[in-house]
Amino acid sequence: MAVKVLCILERRQSRAERPAKIRSRRKRPAVRKVRRATIMSNRFMARAIELSLENVRSGKGGPFATVIVEDGKIIAEGTNQVTSSNDPTAHAEIVAIREACKKLGTFQLTDCEIYTTCEPCPMCLGAIYWTRPARVYFANTAEDAATIGFRDAFIYDEIRQPLTRRRIPMIPLMRDEAQQAFRAWEEKNDRIPY
Amino acid sequence: MAVKVLCILERRQSRAERPAKIRSRRKRPAVRKVRRATIMSNRFMARAIELSLENVRSGKGGPFATVIVEDGKIIAEGTNQVTSSNDPTAHAEIVAIREACKKLGTFQLTDCEIYTTCEPCPMCLGAIYWTRPARVYFANTAEDAATIGFRDAFIYDEIRQPLTRRRIPMIPLMRDEAQQAFRAWEEKNDRIPY
Repeated sequence: MAVKVLCILERRQSRAERPAKIRSRRKRPAVRKVRRATIMSNRFMARAIELSLENVRSGKGGPFATVIVEDGKIIAEGTNQVTSSNDPTAHAEIVAIREACKKLGTFQLTDCEIYTTCEPCPMCLGAIYWTRPARVYFANTAEDAATIGFRDAFIYDEIRQPLTRRRIPMIPLMRDEAQQAFRAWEEKNDRIPY
Repeated sequence: MAVKVLCILERRQSRAERPAKIRSRRKRPAVRKVRRATIMSNRFMARAIELSLENVRSGKGGPFATVIVEDGKIIAEGTNQVTSSNDPTAHAEIVAIREACKKLGTFQLTDCEIYTTCEPCPMCLGAIYWTRPARVYFANTAEDAATIGFRDAFIYDEIRQPLTRRRIPMIPLMRDEAQQAFRAWEEKNDRIPY
């Protein structure tokens, strides 16, 4: 129901904003395709929202869920399981990314779309960049998460700080020695880049 | 051996830099404690470097390793396993954090120290902030990682960009509907914050 209402609102808004020339083309196949894509996007986000609600009700973790879509089909779902699994990395996005990669037998999600109920925290955004999806849809913002007690916005602020100003001390140590492994990597002929 | 050499160099440097008043106190217990702490730090980083080299030689993944220390003892070790496990989140830090939390039965590592052979990428830095360790020691820098083909520095640049300027499109969708789960979380009396 919520999805349907949103689609109507989006259509109204887009009609009002659309210039006359474009408006006259609104029944063309390309436009219908865009509209269909919007409706599908909403269906996937609606599923993610449903999962996030279930996750709170079941007590498995925070109010977050993610679905990953390839070729118009959901290939993986994830919910936040930090407290129930004692795994601070078990955010919805990480859980879904690991599941999608397991299913596809790959460590990249190049043609996939990620639908997540909250703007990814820096950890999850980093994971998203490593997996290289086509795009990410998100619902709540990092600021919304901050208002209910999550530290996403704080961690974004910290990451933007130089090393020396961060709240968790970051101390350089033994760089020269550690370069050995980097040289070994460069010299390895059968290395698999990622 | 490398550790021993480094300790000697550190001692020489600290003698030269130490003012006369402090120099006279160098045999006091507090100073010996600091020196012992430095030597131990090096031992832990040396172990991480050893693991990072083994990881390249065995072909399990990138040239990165992490050890996590609590009360002067290693409680978890991790190496990069992205390509061998088809898990883009299996960076050394994430693997070690998950292992440490499993061992301690917690989702936070409040009193722990993390020794990692490279400055954490944004994903791993995010994970570190969620686990709240006391401090992080790192060897190679994000720029060093970039010189051998890893995208750490690029991802840092992207995270610092506003949403609308990022290379992976980040598209807001259905925020109003997603707020339901946030409200449910706030109303949940037995929620476990993290």
